[in-house]
Amino acid sequence: MFASGARVAVGVSGGADSVCLLHALVELGGLKLSVLHVDHGLRGAESRADAEFVGELAARMGLPFCLREVTLGPGNVEQEGRRARLRFFHEQLAAGNCDRVALGHTRSDQAETVLFRFLRGSGTAGLAGIRPVTAEGIVRPLIELERAEIEEYLRERQIPWREDATNAGEEFARNRIRHGLLPQLAAEWNPALVETLAHTAEFARAEEAYWAGEIDRLSAESLTAGDGCVLIRTESLKALSLAVARRLVRRAIQMAKGDLRGVDFGHVERVVELASAPTGRGRTQVPGLDVRRSFEWLRLGVPFTRKPYSLKPLVPGTTQIPGTRNGISLELIEKSETSVLPWNVYNTEMGCLDWKRLAGSLELRNWRFGDQYQPMGLTGSEKIKTLFQLQRIPVWERAQWPVLTDGESIVWTRRFGPAAGFAAGPESGVVLKLGEVTIR
Amino acid sequence: MFASGARVAVGVSGGADSVCLLHALVELGGLKLSVLHVDHGLRGAESRADAEFVGELAARMGLPFCLREVTLGPGNVEQEGRRARLRFFHEQLAAGNCDRVALGHTRSDQAETVLFRFLRGSGTAGLAGIRPVTAEGIVRPLIELERAEIEEYLRERQIPWREDATNAGEEFARNRIRHGLLPQLAAEWNPALVETLAHTAEFARAEEAYWAGEIDRLSAESLTAGDGCVLIRTESLKALSLAVARRLVRRAIQMAKGDLRGVDFGHVERVVELASAPTGRGRTQVPGLDVRRSFEWLRLGVPFTRKPYSLKPLVPGTTQIPGTRNGISLELIEKSETSVLPWNVYNTEMGCLDWKRLAGSLELRNWRFGDQYQPMGLTGSEKIKTLFQLQRIPVWERAQWPVLTDGESIVWTRRFGPAAGFAAGPESGVVLKLGEVTIR
Repeated sequence: MFASGARVAVGVSGGADSVCLLHALVELGGLKLSVLHVDHGLRGAESRADAEFVGELAARMGLPFCLREVTLGPGNVEQEGRRARLRFFHEQLAAGNCDRVALGHTRSDQAETVLFRFLRGSGTAGLAGIRPVTAEGIVRPLIELERAEIEEYLRERQIPWREDATNAGEEFARNRIRHGLLPQLAAEWNPALVETLAHTAEFARAEEAYWAGEIDRLSAESLTAGDGCVLIRTESLKALSLAVARRLVRRAIQMAKGDLRGVDFGHVERVVELASAPTGRGRTQVPGLDVRRSFEWLRLGVPFTRKPYSLKPLVPGTTQIPGTRNGISLELIEKSETSVLPWNVYNTEMGCLDWKRLAGSLELRNWRFGDQYQPMGLTGSEKIKTLFQLQRIPVWERAQWPVLTDGESIVWTRRFGPAAGFAAGPESGVVLKLGEVTIR
Repeated sequence: MFASGARVAVGVSGGADSVCLLHALVELGGLKLSVLHVDHGLRGAESRADAEFVGELAARMGLPFCLREVTLGPGNVEQEGRRARLRFFHEQLAAGNCDRVALGHTRSDQAETVLFRFLRGSGTAGLAGIRPVTAEGIVRPLIELERAEIEEYLRERQIPWREDATNAGEEFARNRIRHGLLPQLAAEWNPALVETLAHTAEFARAEEAYWAGEIDRLSAESLTAGDGCVLIRTESLKALSLAVARRLVRRAIQMAKGDLRGVDFGHVERVVELASAPTGRGRTQVPGLDVRRSFEWLRLGVPFTRKPYSLKPLVPGTTQIPGTRNGISLELIEKSETSVLPWNVYNTEMGCLDWKRLAGSLELRNWRFGDQYQPMGLTGSEKIKTLFQLQRIPVWERAQWPVLTDGESIVWTRRFGPAAGFAAGPESGVVLKLGEVTIR
């Protein structure tokens, strides 16, 4: 949890757990201790008195004392308080003011957390409960002790602590579990329930650690971050066992929206089902995300919108496609230079147009429903939408799909290339060469 | 769950769930249905009436009816009843009397099971709850419906059912969950608790399916079945992530004792710790198993005992080592035959003795504490115990370790070979060649 000589800041509320922790760490010795306290100012004079109590305790022990006063945002007071404290502790660590922040959570807290999450339904991740050590540097040395043992320690040594009035109030879910449900379940079902739930957490924590490694590996293989979205090939998801697929989808959701807040079993399930459905389209919602299936792809992200554009392209030059990081480059090449441009280049996907056949009023715009033209190699005109279907282009890629027109005629579009009537050939004198580039 | 035309036997207790199931399957059509009923005879006339009710129902529907009367063993009546029913259903499947046995378990049963197991503390395996389909052929078509939906179905169709008196009794854990705890938790914590717990089960079931495959693969690699025991190399266990190591240990315990009854988190944990401890020895208990560490090995099995033996070995011939499937073969080879026995053979692990140097009173016995001799290559006499240490021979292998004596002298022992003073050499006329063989 900490090396000898480490600078350990102890979060002390003034309650039994954290007061015990502070005394125990002083007794242990060999650490550079300091005391942190957060005053939420929620209970007025009482809050003030807690802060003074902790300040005096630190002073008596000759330890540096750091008080943070916070004003809580609206919403769940219990949750907001917890977040404000964690934010403060993480700041202290990030600022290098200490090597570790030690908190007084006990096995009783662990059991309460696991029970609460079980009732809310939160898979193994939730059952893993409170972590004894976090990557950020928070440690919880009392996590294997029960609250009764803590109070015994304090009474034996006649160490005073403050009863937090909020700890008794039934309005907090935590207190209803602590004083109501947990003792009831222990009495009626399992006298060792606190220990049992701590084991459940420990088991789940190891499982989660295993999965984190597995899913890191798989997401590097199978998830692609796009513009404001994450893409998954449905085939790679279908190849996985259901448990792994579910976890990979959770990871994709987390990547796409930054967290997993509000995401439940049903959301994940519907995404997995969308990937396995035989039809290559469909849609489902995850809080904060739009999930679309198109052919072999799933897209998780903010809903994509069509941003119409109509530009005079630079010749020569590169014109950025609005709403994307791609640009269309246009270049004029004279006949005399054809030695560096073999004829077969005319048949590449990007293609070349015969400059003489163009009237010169070029427009670069996005694909529109109903667009049609005759690409080289086809015997007649075809709707671009049909070409999209044939080439399995996902719907979200179509929105900004570039089309080059000359007057009324489509002379080129991405992927399907030059129009048969405008394509450059051996007889062309001046060639307009098209390319697509990524703009950083 | 079942193919069209399948022969489906429906387990009907007479209660709402199973009566609903039977009607629903009749409605569904396309199946060859029959009705199974188990009478535990627990509630005398009432049990009888249940059986008659179900029999009459089957008759009215024109379905074959099979009644099994059982007498329950001592112990937990609820558990014994469940086991007796399952035994009967498995018999029916094994005998080929039906393709599937359909049971009336609902999502409400699922939630009760998950909650009960959570309170008892049973990792993901327990949280997986009731399986909708088992490998043996039991199916539970109502597993996604709640009990209220079942009763609605029956009331709408005015179908009567029997209220099982045992379902109301508070003496059964199941009933205390059904009528007490689950409604309380739903009211106080999560109105959708039954659904939440069903999802927990579904999630856990997929995880377990994944793990079953992983652990099958790993146990084929890392577990060795020995005489009444299972062996694991500690190195292969230490190389695994904790979650995987725990699951592999559970598998090893299951292999060694046939089931996992009575095995809890702490047992598994102590075995994993025994494997990771830096000292190469130690011991822990798992219900029904003795777990020993010796050097790089863990042995899980019935405690090994030393079975003393002292035999006149057959010359020539093979003598079985008592308590093992190994035998020591002794063979006499004349000088004239040395052409087929090159000299370097004398120096193999098994070795050869010079027949002339032996007084002839050979004894084959197990190693005794204090035994010592001078193997070839050592400059003096050495305790065999020291040689065991040097060669890292696990303690359980030492118990029946064979030693060959001639009068007072040890002339040979397994692995360490002939004694320097008795080993055959180029000058030997007649050679006693030793070998060890497996006896099937």
